[in-house]
Amino acid sequence: MQLHFYKMQGIGNDYVYINAMETKVPNPSALSKTVSDRHFGIGSDGLILLLPSTVADVRMQMFNADGSEGKMCGNGIRCVGKLAYELDICKSESMTVETLSGIKTLKLQVEDGKVSSVCVDMGSPSMEIEKIPVRYTERRMVEAPLTVNGTTYSVTCVSMGNPHAVIFTDGIDEMELEKIGPQFEHHEIFPESVNTEFVEALGDHLLKMRVWERGSGETLACGTGACAVVVAACLTKRCPRGEDVDVLLRGGKLTIRWDNDRVWMTGPAELVYTGDIEIVE
Amino acid sequence: MQLHFYKMQGIGNDYVYINAMETKVPNPSALSKTVSDRHFGIGSDGLILLLPSTVADVRMQMFNADGSEGKMCGNGIRCVGKLAYELDICKSESMTVETLSGIKTLKLQVEDGKVSSVCVDMGSPSMEIEKIPVRYTERRMVEAPLTVNGTTYSVTCVSMGNPHAVIFTDGIDEMELEKIGPQFEHHEIFPESVNTEFVEALGDHLLKMRVWERGSGETLACGTGACAVVVAACLTKRCPRGEDVDVLLRGGKLTIRWDNDRVWMTGPAELVYTGDIEIVE
Repeated sequence: MQLHFYKMQGIGNDYVYINAMETKVPNPSALSKTVSDRHFGIGSDGLILLLPSTVADVRMQMFNADGSEGKMCGNGIRCVGKLAYELDICKSESMTVETLSGIKTLKLQVEDGKVSSVCVDMGSPSMEIEKIPVRYTERRMVEAPLTVNGTTYSVTCVSMGNPHAVIFTDGIDEMELEKIGPQFEHHEIFPESVNTEFVEALGDHLLKMRVWERGSGETLACGTGACAVVVAACLTKRCPRGEDVDVLLRGGKLTIRWDNDRVWMTGPAELVYTGDIEIVE
Repeated sequence: MQLHFYKMQGIGNDYVYINAMETKVPNPSALSKTVSDRHFGIGSDGLILLLPSTVADVRMQMFNADGSEGKMCGNGIRCVGKLAYELDICKSESMTVETLSGIKTLKLQVEDGKVSSVCVDMGSPSMEIEKIPVRYTERRMVEAPLTVNGTTYSVTCVSMGNPHAVIFTDGIDEMELEKIGPQFEHHEIFPESVNTEFVEALGDHLLKMRVWERGSGETLACGTGACAVVVAACLTKRCPRGEDVDVLLRGGKLTIRWDNDRVWMTGPAELVYTGDIEIVE
C-alpha cells in the first residue's frame, strides 16, 4: 500500500508523521523501525501517527526508531499541533492532544495560515527525590555535591515526568560529554538512570545547554531537559520564575516559562517535505 | 520553488535524485548540503542530478553531503540507470552515462517494467605504483609487507581510478577498524591517502569485506573498493578471473567480474520513496 507522509522537525528532533485520522496504518511499530533507518529507509528519530480521540482534539501515538512505543515528545507534539492545524483536523489556535502521558494543551502561533511556533503545557515539575527517583538522604537535591568518577559536581535533580540531573558549569562546549554523560547515566544514586544537562548561564533570561539522554547519548534537543534546566535555574536564583527564559540547545532555541505550577515550552515546528512510500502490508 | 525528488539507495549508499532533464536546479552544491542533513533536511549521502548529455544517453552530476562535486559513484550510477529507464529518459536495457570520470556503460535487468539490478562497466584496474599512487621500490605492490603502527600487514594495492589497499585476513568482524583505518589512511607511503579494505575469503567465489574510506571513515558500501578487492583476490589466486565473485559488504551484496581488461559490477538499485520539497531560490 502507498502511504503519504510528512517529514517534520523541531530543533533537529525529526519524525515521520502520518495522518491516520481516516486511514488505518498496519503494524506501526514495525513500520517505525523500517522508515527510521537513515540509509535504507526515510531516516528519522521515529514515527508519529495522528489519530482520532474521544477525549481531545487529536491523539498522538509515537514510536521510537527501535519500534518501541514512546509516551510523549515535547518537540514532536509541536509538529503534531502544526500538522493538525494545517490539515484542518483541528482549525483552532488552542488544541488538546491525547498522549500516553495524558492530555496536553497546545497554543499555536499562526502567520498567513501557517503555524510558525507552538507553546506546550509541559505539566508540573517535581523535586521530590522519591518521584524523580534519586537515592538521597534529604527531601530535595538542589545544588547538592555528587561525586562522579572522582570529580564532585553541584547537582540539582528535577522530574518532568522523567528524571533529570542539572549541573551549572562553564565551558560546556569543550567538555567531553561522551565520557562524563555515561558516568551520570549509570551512577548508583539513579535507580532508573537519568538524563543529564550541563548548563552555562549566559544571562538571567538566557541559558545554553548540552544534554546526555539515557539510552540515546548526546542529542540535538531534549524538550523535557530544557524545562528541567529552567526549573533548576529558578530554584537556584539564576533566572526569574514566571518569565520567559531562552534556552540554546545544539539543535536550536526553546523558550521556557515556569509559571505558577506549570512549565510552558515554546519552540518551532517545521515541515521539511512531503513524501509517498510504498509499504508491504 | 517546489522540487520533486526520488530517494534511492544501492546497498545503503543513499542519495537524493532529481530529474533535471527539463527543469533547471538552482545552485545544486548548496542544495546538496541542505538536503543531505539527516535531521534538518531530507537526509542523504548527497545529491545526484540527471541532466541532458550530448555524448551519452544521460548525464549524472553528483554532489557530496558537504557540497563538493563528486566524480562518480558505483552505487549511485546504478540508481541513475534505474531512474532514467523508469522515467522514460532512456528506455533501453543498455545505457551510457556521462560522468566526470568519463562515459560509463550500464546493463539493466528489467522485471515487469521495473529495473531490479544494474551492471556497470567500472573500467580497467591499474596496479602500477605511480598510478595508484604508492611510494614503493618495486613496480607493483602485491601481498607485500607493510608495517603500520608496529604491525606488519600483507598488502595489495590497486587503482580503480582511486587508490585502494587490500588486506586479506581473518576475523574482520571483530577488528577495530576505527583505530586501524586511520593509520593506513595517513601512512606516508600513500601520497594521496588511500581507501583500505579488509577481506575474508569465504570461498573462491565469495568474499566478505569492510572498508575504511579516505575522508569518510567506515562506510556501508564502496563500489570501487569491492572491485579492487576482487582484482586483488584474482592477482593472489584466491578467486578466478573471468567469473562472477560475490562480495558481501555491510550494506549488502555486489557481484564483481574481472573480465579481460574490464571490471563489471552488478548490484541492486532501489527507490525508497518519492518526495516534494519547497526550496528557497
